[in-house]
Amino acid sequence: MTTYAETIAAGQTGHGHLLGIEGLRADQISNLLDLADGYVDQNRAVKKTIDLLEGRTVINLFFENSTRTRTSFELAAKRLGADVINMTVASSSIKKGETLVDTAMTLNAMHPDVMVVRHSDSGAVKLLSEKVNGSVINAGDGSHEHPTQALLDALTIRRRKGDLYGLRVAICGDVAHSRVARSNIHLLNTMGAEVRLIAPPTLLPSAVDRMGVETFHNMKEGLEGCDIVMMLRLQLERMQGSFVPSVREYFRYFGLDQEKLAMAKPDALVMHPGPMNRGVEIDSELADDLDRSLIRTQVEMGVAVRMACLHALTQGTLSDGVRS
Amino acid sequence: MTTYAETIAAGQTGHGHLLGIEGLRADQISNLLDLADGYVDQNRAVKKTIDLLEGRTVINLFFENSTRTRTSFELAAKRLGADVINMTVASSSIKKGETLVDTAMTLNAMHPDVMVVRHSDSGAVKLLSEKVNGSVINAGDGSHEHPTQALLDALTIRRRKGDLYGLRVAICGDVAHSRVARSNIHLLNTMGAEVRLIAPPTLLPSAVDRMGVETFHNMKEGLEGCDIVMMLRLQLERMQGSFVPSVREYFRYFGLDQEKLAMAKPDALVMHPGPMNRGVEIDSELADDLDRSLIRTQVEMGVAVRMACLHALTQGTLSDGVRS
Amino acid sequence: MTTYAETIAAGQTGHGHLLGIEGLRADQISNLLDLADGYVDQNRAVKKTIDLLEGRTVINLFFENSTRTRTSFELAAKRLGADVINMTVASSSIKKGETLVDTAMTLNAMHPDVMVVRHSDSGAVKLLSEKVNGSVINAGDGSHEHPTQALLDALTIRRRKGDLYGLRVAICGDVAHSRVARSNIHLLNTMGAEVRLIAPPTLLPSAVDRMGVETFHNMKEGLEGCDIVMMLRLQLERMQGSFVPSVREYFRYFGLDQEKLAMAKPDALVMHPGPMNRGVEIDSELADDLDRSLIRTQVEMGVAVRMACLHALTQGTLSDGVRS
Repeated sequence: MTTYAETIAAGQTGHGHLLGIEGLRADQISNLLDLADGYVDQNRAVKKTIDLLEGRTVINLFFENSTRTRTSFELAAKRLGADVINMTVASSSIKKGETLVDTAMTLNAMHPDVMVVRHSDSGAVKLLSEKVNGSVINAGDGSHEHPTQALLDALTIRRRKGDLYGLRVAICGDVAHSRVARSNIHLLNTMGAEVRLIAPPTLLPSAVDRMGVETFHNMKEGLEGCDIVMMLRLQLERMQGSFVPSVREYFRYFGLDQEKLAMAKPDALVMHPGPMNRGVEIDSELADDLDRSLIRTQVEMGVAVRMACLHALTQGTLSDGVRS
Repeated sequence: MTTYAETIAAGQTGHGHLLGIEGLRADQISNLLDLADGYVDQNRAVKKTIDLLEGRTVINLFFENSTRTRTSFELAAKRLGADVINMTVASSSIKKGETLVDTAMTLNAMHPDVMVVRHSDSGAVKLLSEKVNGSVINAGDGSHEHPTQALLDALTIRRRKGDLYGLRVAICGDVAHSRVARSNIHLLNTMGAEVRLIAPPTLLPSAVDRMGVETFHNMKEGLEGCDIVMMLRLQLERMQGSFVPSVREYFRYFGLDQEKLAMAKPDALVMHPGPMNRGVEIDSELADDLDRSLIRTQVEMGVAVRMACLHALTQGTLSDGVRS
Repeated sequence: MTTYAETIAAGQTGHGHLLGIEGLRADQISNLLDLADGYVDQNRAVKKTIDLLEGRTVINLFFENSTRTRTSFELAAKRLGADVINMTVASSSIKKGETLVDTAMTLNAMHPDVMVVRHSDSGAVKLLSEKVNGSVINAGDGSHEHPTQALLDALTIRRRKGDLYGLRVAICGDVAHSRVARSNIHLLNTMGAEVRLIAPPTLLPSAVDRMGVETFHNMKEGLEGCDIVMMLRLQLERMQGSFVPSVREYFRYFGLDQEKLAMAKPDALVMHPGPMNRGVEIDSELADDLDRSLIRTQVEMGVAVRMACLHALTQGTLSDGVRS
C-alpha cells in the first residue's frame, strides 16, 4: 500500500499532490477543514478571495463526465482568481490514439499550477502525478479514492456535530464500487470515528477485513445508535457483468427510509454524495427533509473544500500548519 | 395563466427571475431596453464594464445546444466581470438518471447569483426557478417563451424606428412551435404595436384567437403596410409526427423574397432570430441585404440585452426604475 | 496562389489575419518569434501579462476537436487578460443546418477582437476571414496550413540552434495530408533553411516539385547530415479511400529510431507536432529522450507563440516592427 502523506507534505514547494485520504494524518485533515471553514460565510456561501491564485492556471482534466465535481472545482479555482481550463477528454485526442500519459504531458508542458484529474481507472491519477510538474488533485479515480468528497463530507459533519471523534457513522450500499466510501473510511478512521459498513455481501469490497470497520448485512442492525448515515449511489453503470439487484428489492432491504432511520440516534443525520437514485438507495422525501438530510450542505461545502485544497497545494499552507 | 411581473419586480432583492415577457409591464420593458441601449457603443459593440458583477457567479445551464444564445449570455456575463460556468447537460449527470430538479439543486447549492437555463420542455425553467435561491433567466423553454430574444428584437426595432408604438409587425412562419414568436407577441402587444401572424393553418398555435393578433394565411395580404417583417425558423426538428411541408413548396408560399416584401411599406425591415434556413423561410440575398435586413443587428444587440437583464436582476435597477 | 503578407501587415488596424505562413516575409516571422521569446521565462513557462487584452474578446471556434491547440490558444488569451469563449461546433447549430458562414457571422456580430478557427476543409478559415470584422487566426484548416504550429516549431529550433538559416531540416512521413508540413516548408524556406521531405511516394503531395524542397523515399539517405528531424503524425483518420500502409511495415521503413537517426548529425534534434502514434512514426523511447527530443519544448513554446500572435494582431506590434 502506498502512503500519500509525503506528497501533500511537500506542499510548500507548490508541487505536492492530493491523491487520496489514505496516508494523511489527522492534523493535516484538520488543517484542510479549518482552511475550508474559513472560506464559508454565514450563508454557507463562499467568499471571493481573488488574489490567491491570480496568474495561476488550473486545468480540469476529466476523462469521465461530472456535473457537480467539475463545476465545483471550476468555481473554487475562479473564486481564487485562477485561470481555469476545462478538458473533457472523451471527445478529444484520446480518440486519435494518444496515450493517457501523452495527453497529460501535453497539458503539463503548458505549465499549469494544478491539474484536477478524474479517470475511470483506479490508479490513473497517481500515474499522471508522477509525470507532471505541477500539483495534481484526484477528483475521483475508478473505485479507488475521491478525497475532496470525503473532506467535504467531513466538513459537513463537523459543522453540525462539532467533532468527528467518537461519532458512529454507517456507510450503506454499494461500497465495493465506491471511491467515495473508500476515502470516507480512511478519513473517518483517521479522525477517530467508528465506521460501519452496511451492504449485501456482493457489494462489500473483498479487502473489507483489513479496513478497520464493522460490517452488517442488515440495515436495521447496522444503523443502531448511529450519528451519521451515509448512503451511497447504486453505481449501476459500474456493475457490468456482476449481479445487479432488482431496484425494488434493493430499496426494500437497503434503501434508507424513515422506518429504518428510526433505528439510528434520534438526531442522526443523512448524507448522500449524489447524484441520487431517488427511490432506489434513498426515499425521496427523506432526501429532501432539511431536518435530517445534509445533502444540500454537502454540495455547499464542496466549493470551500476545493478552495482549501487548491490553497494548501499552491501556497504550502497545509504543510506550514503541519510543521508548526 | 401565470403572471411574471412580480418575479422581476422583486429584482432589488437580487432574487427576481426573468421567465417570460408575459406579465411584464410596458415601463419594465422600456427600462430594460434603456439599460441595454446604454451598453451599446457607437460601433454597435458593447462596452466593457468590469465591476458590476465582480465576484458574482453566473451558471449557464443548457439542456439544449445553442451557439448564439449560450455564447451571448457567456460574453454578457464576462463583460460585467462575473465568473461564468457553462453546463451543457446532454452529456452529463442526467445520463446517470439524476432528475432535472436534483441537477439544478446541486448547482444551486454552489450559490450562483444567476442561473441562465434553456430546456426543451415548456415550463421546465419556471419549475427550476421555484427551487433555487438565485435569479433565473429563461434562455428558451420548449415552445413557451424566449424573453431575451424578444427584448433584443425590440431593441433592434427601437433603434431604427424610434418607438415600437403603432408599428405594424408581421410574424411569419412556424408560429406554433416558436417560443420566439410567443415572447414577441407578448412584448409587441404590451408596447402598443399591431401584430399580425402569417402562417399556414397547421403552423398557427391553437390558442391564436386569444392572443390579440390578426392572422393571415397569405403572405402578400398579411405583409400589406407592415413596418417590420419577422421571419421565423422552420423548426423541422420540432415537427416530428406532424405535417412537414415540402421545403420548396414552403418557400414558394411562405418564404420571404423581394417580391412578397414589396407588399410591405417601402422602408419595411426584415428580421430573423436565427439560425436561418436560407432558401426555406427567407431568400438568401434578402437576408444579407443590409438596407433591409436587421439580422446582424439582432445578434449585436443580444449581448447588450443580456447584460441589461443580468444587471437588472442582480442590482435591482429595473425595479428601482419601476418604483421611481 | 494567395499572398497573406498584406493581411498580417494590416495588423496595426487591429483587423489583420494570420491565415498561413505562405506570404509572410522573413522579418515578419523573426518579429513574431522575438515577441514570443519575450513571453517565455527562464523555466520555459510563460509570463502573465494581464493588461494587454484586458476587455478584449477571443472566440475559439473549432469545427474539429483538439486537445493541445484549443487549450494552448485559450491559455494564451487568458494570460493576456482576454475574455475567452470556446465554441466546438460539432454538437451545435451546424446540426440544425446553419451554414459555416452564418455561424461565423453570428459570432462576428458579438464583436470579438480575434476569432481562432480550426476547420477540416482547406480554405474554410480564409473564407471566414473575408466575412468577419475582427482578426482571424488559422488554427489548422484541412491539409492547408497550421501557421502557429510552424512558428512554435521555429521558436523551438531557434532557441536551441541560435538561427534557422543554413540548417538542414528533414520533414518525414505523411507530408501529403499534413498542414503542419506545409506551414513548416514555407517558414523554413523563407528563413533560409534547407528542407528535405522523406516519405513514400504515395504520401508526398502532388505539387512537391514546386515546393523548393528535395525529396527522398529512403529515410537513411534523407537524414544524412540533418540538423533537425521533424516527424509527422500518420493521419490515419484523413486517409479514407487511399492506400493505408501496414503500421508495422511503415515503422520499419519510415519510423524514426536510433539507428536511422544515426545518419543525421551527431547533435541532430527530433521534433513531432503531436499527438504521436508511438511505435508507428516514432520509437517511443526516442520520443522521450530529452537529449534528442524537443517534443515537450514544442508544446511549451505553443502558449508563448500564440500570445505573440494575439499580441501582434491586436496591437499592431508586428507591423510596427516591419515598418521600422
